[in-house]
Amino acid sequence: MAAAALEEIYAPVRPDLDALERLFRAELSSEDPFVGQLVTHVLATRGKMLRPALACLSARAAGDAARMPEQAEDRLGAAGAVELIHVASLIHDDVIDAADLRRGQASVNAIWGNQVAVLLGDFLFSKAFHMLARLRTREVAAAMAAATVRMAKAEIIQIKHGNTPHTDERIYFGIIDGKTAALTGAACRCGALTAGARPEVAEALATFGLEWGMSFQITDDALDITATADHLGKPIGSDIQTGKVTLPIIYALRDAPEQDGRRLREILSADGNHTSGAGLPAAPVSVLDEVQAIVARTGAVERALGVARERAQRAARALVGLPPSAARDSLAALVQFVTVRTR
Amino acid sequence: MAAAALEEIYAPVRPDLDALERLFRAELSSEDPFVGQLVTHVLATRGKMLRPALACLSARAAGDAARMPEQAEDRLGAAGAVELIHVASLIHDDVIDAADLRRGQASVNAIWGNQVAVLLGDFLFSKAFHMLARLRTREVAAAMAAATVRMAKAEIIQIKHGNTPHTDERIYFGIIDGKTAALTGAACRCGALTAGARPEVAEALATFGLEWGMSFQITDDALDITATADHLGKPIGSDIQTGKVTLPIIYALRDAPEQDGRRLREILSADGNHTSGAGLPAAPVSVLDEVQAIVARTGAVERALGVARERAQRAARALVGLPPSAARDSLAALVQFVTVRTR
Repeated sequence: MAAAALEEIYAPVRPDLDALERLFRAELSSEDPFVGQLVTHVLATRGKMLRPALACLSARAAGDAARMPEQAEDRLGAAGAVELIHVASLIHDDVIDAADLRRGQASVNAIWGNQVAVLLGDFLFSKAFHMLARLRTREVAAAMAAATVRMAKAEIIQIKHGNTPHTDERIYFGIIDGKTAALTGAACRCGALTAGARPEVAEALATFGLEWGMSFQITDDALDITATADHLGKPIGSDIQTGKVTLPIIYALRDAPEQDGRRLREILSADGNHTSGAGLPAAPVSVLDEVQAIVARTGAVERALGVARERAQRAARALVGLPPSAARDSLAALVQFVTVRTR
Repeated sequence: MAAAALEEIYAPVRPDLDALERLFRAELSSEDPFVGQLVTHVLATRGKMLRPALACLSARAAGDAARMPEQAEDRLGAAGAVELIHVASLIHDDVIDAADLRRGQASVNAIWGNQVAVLLGDFLFSKAFHMLARLRTREVAAAMAAATVRMAKAEIIQIKHGNTPHTDERIYFGIIDGKTAALTGAACRCGALTAGARPEVAEALATFGLEWGMSFQITDDALDITATADHLGKPIGSDIQTGKVTLPIIYALRDAPEQDGRRLREILSADGNHTSGAGLPAAPVSVLDEVQAIVARTGAVERALGVARERAQRAARALVGLPPSAARDSLAALVQFVTVRTR
């Protein structure tokens, strides 16, 4: 789906997203020129603002109350915090994966080193929690912190299961629940809370965000195997190189004919193929080609994308009970956005 | 000062500190065995619990209100969070400094690698903010988050000024204000807030914590140059090896006779002497000996310790207006503890 379509989806919250840009500049301004330089880089290399859009759309889909001016502050605070938490976690992820690229640009660790990247992540986490601590809607900070706890825990478990090819999809679902869906679920829940949503409405939107996040991450992981580097803005097969076991791999390991399965297991277990941030050279292209070919023969990517569509349908169903609104339509369109994208 | 003496100082808050141990076990328990193993390691290798003691002593020094049972929960939550934030920041510091030892034991990064250490720090930060988000005393979370922002910012600035020998003590004071004193100040302020302290009492205790932290860090840095490895529980001269410019170095650079000054500048600028987490070999012992000798000839360590005593006196003066209590006496004794310690 092209950027123009996303722009259309964001239309009901465009004023919110514009206000967020001003909020970021005010919150993150620094008298220290080096910190200022880091912040400028971070603000310039952000992604699609999906999480703050989810928060603001959820607030507006939750009811009319979101229109009241005293709620705008909390809505923007929650949306801003979720974006800062996301950005901070990406900066730490790039340290962990020893990734030089982020959205096609040099990562913070590539430019300034791991030390600065670890601290910049801590700085942004702290800023996010400072914003959350000042909101009138008290439950928001706790919900967001609980999501961040789940994120960190899931990533620790992911590292532990890295380099050990397995066919247990429950482990995979547990990891992406924490690492992605917890935060998108919290974004939607917190957006709804800032609009004073009734508990069942907040719960429905939280479910939407959670299932949307699951669908998003499963799709992302499936595309990591099939997409070209140009499309993806990061090296192809980067999950394989960093030892992440994703759904297509789990299905391929389970379903491949004996010889293919043995070879796949061998490749994934080989030390040299998992840099895991240790700075070893990347797996040779020929090996990645081999993985792509084996996975393709099993149809595992299509099966994984089928699971992603299933979770997307669950997300769409969570919206059914909400009153009709432009914001609800946009959330529904975001479900489409996830399942039809190619990058 | 021996451990027994510290035990005496802690007497008015011993029940709080014991309750904290139970709180940590409950808050940090995990169904995942690997996360559980990490938490067990972290809980077993903690330090002197100075920050939670500061928080609890401040709550009890702030007034009788701290005795009310409904305030115990907030007091322990604030004290627990400040300890988790401190521990998380140390885990990240050890990644940044590529330090293998922490309090004489293997550091998290040395045992499980940088990836796990970054994420474990994030996990503990998030847990701390989750605890803070649930407190009744609203101002606590914001005060603590503001301190954490200052910490991260100060450490970024410290890295930027590493490897550039300078004689500007304001830069040094700015760095330790953020990296140490902001959190000890917040510990005391937040402790007081949980006891419902009047603003001027909370302010006096915050000043106490801030000045105590300054004194503590200046002393720590001065001891890094003079102490033996055995005494310190970490390699001697570790600040020099990681490129940190501390007060004795600033004074020595300023006051050393020309030839000594030139040699000192040369040593500190030499690339090979600053590992800064980059994994270069440590400076040879002979070079550290040379630094110690040059610094000793200028009397810079004594001058730095004099400044530490000055800040300790400011801390002590901040206590003057508080009502007499065992907790206030303990805070006063903690001032002594900082300035007479040799490790």
